[in-house]
Amino acid sequence: MNPKQLIKNLKKIFGERVKIEDEDKIPYLTDATGLYIESPLAVVFPINVLEVRKLIELARKNKVPLFPRGGGSSLSGGPIPTSRSGIVVSFARMNRVIETNLKDMQVIVEPGTVLEELNILLRKYGVFFPVDPASSSVATIGGMIAENAGGVRAVKYGVMRNWVLSLEVVTGRGDIIETGYKTFKQVVGYDLTSLFVGSEGTLGLITKATLRIAPLPKYHAICYGFFPDVSTGSKAIHEVVLNNIDVSAIEILDKNTLEAIKKFKTFDYMGESMVLIEISGNDLGYIKSQVSIVKKIFQKNSVLDFLCSSNDEEYEKLWSIRKSAAPALANLKERFISLDPTIPISKVPIFMEKVNEICEKYGVLCATFGHAGDGNVHPNIVFNPEDINEVKRVDMVIEEIYKLAIKLGGTISGEHGVGLEKIKYLKFEVDEKKLSLFKEIKKIFDPDNILNPMKIFPKD
Amino acid sequence: MNPKQLIKNLKKIFGERVKIEDEDKIPYLTDATGLYIESPLAVVFPINVLEVRKLIELARKNKVPLFPRGGGSSLSGGPIPTSRSGIVVSFARMNRVIETNLKDMQVIVEPGTVLEELNILLRKYGVFFPVDPASSSVATIGGMIAENAGGVRAVKYGVMRNWVLSLEVVTGRGDIIETGYKTFKQVVGYDLTSLFVGSEGTLGLITKATLRIAPLPKYHAICYGFFPDVSTGSKAIHEVVLNNIDVSAIEILDKNTLEAIKKFKTFDYMGESMVLIEISGNDLGYIKSQVSIVKKIFQKNSVLDFLCSSNDEEYEKLWSIRKSAAPALANLKERFISLDPTIPISKVPIFMEKVNEICEKYGVLCATFGHAGDGNVHPNIVFNPEDINEVKRVDMVIEEIYKLAIKLGGTISGEHGVGLEKIKYLKFEVDEKKLSLFKEIKKIFDPDNILNPMKIFPKD
Repeated sequence: MNPKQLIKNLKKIFGERVKIEDEDKIPYLTDATGLYIESPLAVVFPINVLEVRKLIELARKNKVPLFPRGGGSSLSGGPIPTSRSGIVVSFARMNRVIETNLKDMQVIVEPGTVLEELNILLRKYGVFFPVDPASSSVATIGGMIAENAGGVRAVKYGVMRNWVLSLEVVTGRGDIIETGYKTFKQVVGYDLTSLFVGSEGTLGLITKATLRIAPLPKYHAICYGFFPDVSTGSKAIHEVVLNNIDVSAIEILDKNTLEAIKKFKTFDYMGESMVLIEISGNDLGYIKSQVSIVKKIFQKNSVLDFLCSSNDEEYEKLWSIRKSAAPALANLKERFISLDPTIPISKVPIFMEKVNEICEKYGVLCATFGHAGDGNVHPNIVFNPEDINEVKRVDMVIEEIYKLAIKLGGTISGEHGVGLEKIKYLKFEVDEKKLSLFKEIKKIFDPDNILNPMKIFPKD
Repeated sequence: MNPKQLIKNLKKIFGERVKIEDEDKIPYLTDATGLYIESPLAVVFPINVLEVRKLIELARKNKVPLFPRGGGSSLSGGPIPTSRSGIVVSFARMNRVIETNLKDMQVIVEPGTVLEELNILLRKYGVFFPVDPASSSVATIGGMIAENAGGVRAVKYGVMRNWVLSLEVVTGRGDIIETGYKTFKQVVGYDLTSLFVGSEGTLGLITKATLRIAPLPKYHAICYGFFPDVSTGSKAIHEVVLNNIDVSAIEILDKNTLEAIKKFKTFDYMGESMVLIEISGNDLGYIKSQVSIVKKIFQKNSVLDFLCSSNDEEYEKLWSIRKSAAPALANLKERFISLDPTIPISKVPIFMEKVNEICEKYGVLCATFGHAGDGNVHPNIVFNPEDINEVKRVDMVIEEIYKLAIKLGGTISGEHGVGLEKIKYLKFEVDEKKLSLFKEIKKIFDPDNILNPMKIFPKD
């Protein structure tokens, strides 16, 4: 089918909800990585599952690639269109919260539902959806499922896979299936839900999700401490984890991150690392007792200065410091890349040290911060993409960091996904046998390879 | 290959670890269901992954069914051999704890490791593996993974899927693969680990598992209450869950269960249902405050009598009452079946009422008890298998109970698996499209259908 005919057919399905003009397509060409490959033929905006099925049927018949897209906040290139004849499928118009079932602590949402908007709605009932990526104001539930998103509270609440009960999906075959159950336990056949979570839009298009929700904690405290170096800071964190302190976030920021924040906003620091710990719950006495243990652990680990507070203002201020880390770094140079290796928690200190050594060796500016409580610390790299020599060095740094993560028993991606960006590092951890299983699974669900082709792994 | 030749070949792999005499095979013919189908050709006892691979290669070449077996405590017929030409693969000799990594809160174990033995070992270090099926003294980690086991503490700790990080598996193709990671988060390709968890031995034989472990709580309290009926009791439970009380177990026992226990051991009760709630943690003050909320909820819900205690003796006594429920019921009549439907938590009261109505309608003795905090209450049926008329009525009761669970938004199996026993009810919740996906996934991993054939779903 020629492009004109294809667009005609798309208009039959979507009416006015087809964008083909270059200027209309601009917001759909990249994601938070800033990578650009190709402008697609069209961007479409389905409003229900039947339209999605029609689209898949059309795409299958004509071997047209589809690029599903949520909020576009991916840090791995997941939603980026890679073909000029492809179609971006934006779920922006499928963003309804279909059901809020407080009695069973579940919600049913469409995939385009923005996390923050869901939580604004849920807060009224004293509940929330606890998976909390930094991009919560734009990230959609569909995208979060596709990438098995994590975020700052994963140390307490886990990742998307722990919160998705059931999915309605249109597979690449055009079948509408419902995976999973509305119950908290089940073992009836193979776990298709977990297969779709983290599949980065390559097996099916999610059209509905049933999620568990959690009671919103009534109180919270936050502790921060400055440590002489990343080693002492991350050792304190490790001790907090092993002591079973009931934390809801454990973050670390290294010296380069702190320095960038200092340049970016009113902020000062001591030493070479900052640790941030959040404790939340419904029992103030319990929170206080947990805080007192954290204080002791801080002191035992050579903390230079620290403060614990349950004051709302202090709490907001500290989180705003943490949240300014990425923009502060992005502010330093033209381009900013956030890497996503994850290592076993005991390896965080050595990992952070070695990352610094690698960056220094190549003269590249790195800054590491992130979720040290679950081993998911993000090394970030800032550089000038026009400087060909620097770009080369950056490439070597990235490769060495991922190899280091693997060597320490870790993975190349904790929560961002492989997307486009990590395809070339996939072989570091996925051998031929596993890759061939991936490819065969892909073929079952998407026999014509129309769903987000060229993502995660080369299809042939 | 004729049976004699096959046995010869088995002996080449396993030496003396091949059992072929009828009396030696007796312990391997059934499981906790007591169902019996067929005596297999042999029982083998691999001691390492290479033997498992050799076995699979031999079985593939000769189209011989393999029936993997852990502790044999399955309540769904999972390990039962269904073919006279098949081979039972007992993992009893692969039961080593390979590594205890306290720094990363992980253990690496062989599949035949018995849960209780693992926990005796871990307790010394102040940690434990928290998934806790009633059969903990015989259940093996491999079997628990195969069935995605749950148990009394799932309300706090979740099920096996939440604790398995990585698996070494020999697929039905004979490939040795390693799934998952040693880290707490990951998204690199499709989630093969979750696919194997709950696959009931039909996709591959697990030869090694890396599990998360948890800090052992220092203190615990237990509350029990007698309620006028199951409705008031289960409403109290629902309120405890919605109030975010930090419970580690919530169990309910109905009148018939209580009556059976009374006949079985020194025990008396009031009203028509008993609720048992365990709260555990490292902070005594917090436990007390949680207990006081439980008390208030009990009182609000017409409790007849209750007691909360953190006394060790009382604690052991109460758990021993709960744990005697199954043997007490099994004691009433010749045969005892434990059903495993799971419903959304708000549906527990209506489900328990309707189950009673169904059993009364058919004049069948049922007793329901179990994990009400996650909607996994087990209706149990006792009957005389020689009484053909009673057996017919029991069949009708089972079918109606599973249909009821589905109607209430539930599933036919929360933690026991489909195995042999629930194959005929599978169609109540798995439609043709999903079934065909299951079959295609099965074909990828086990193209010759040698792994636990005739389990979960009909293969052709």
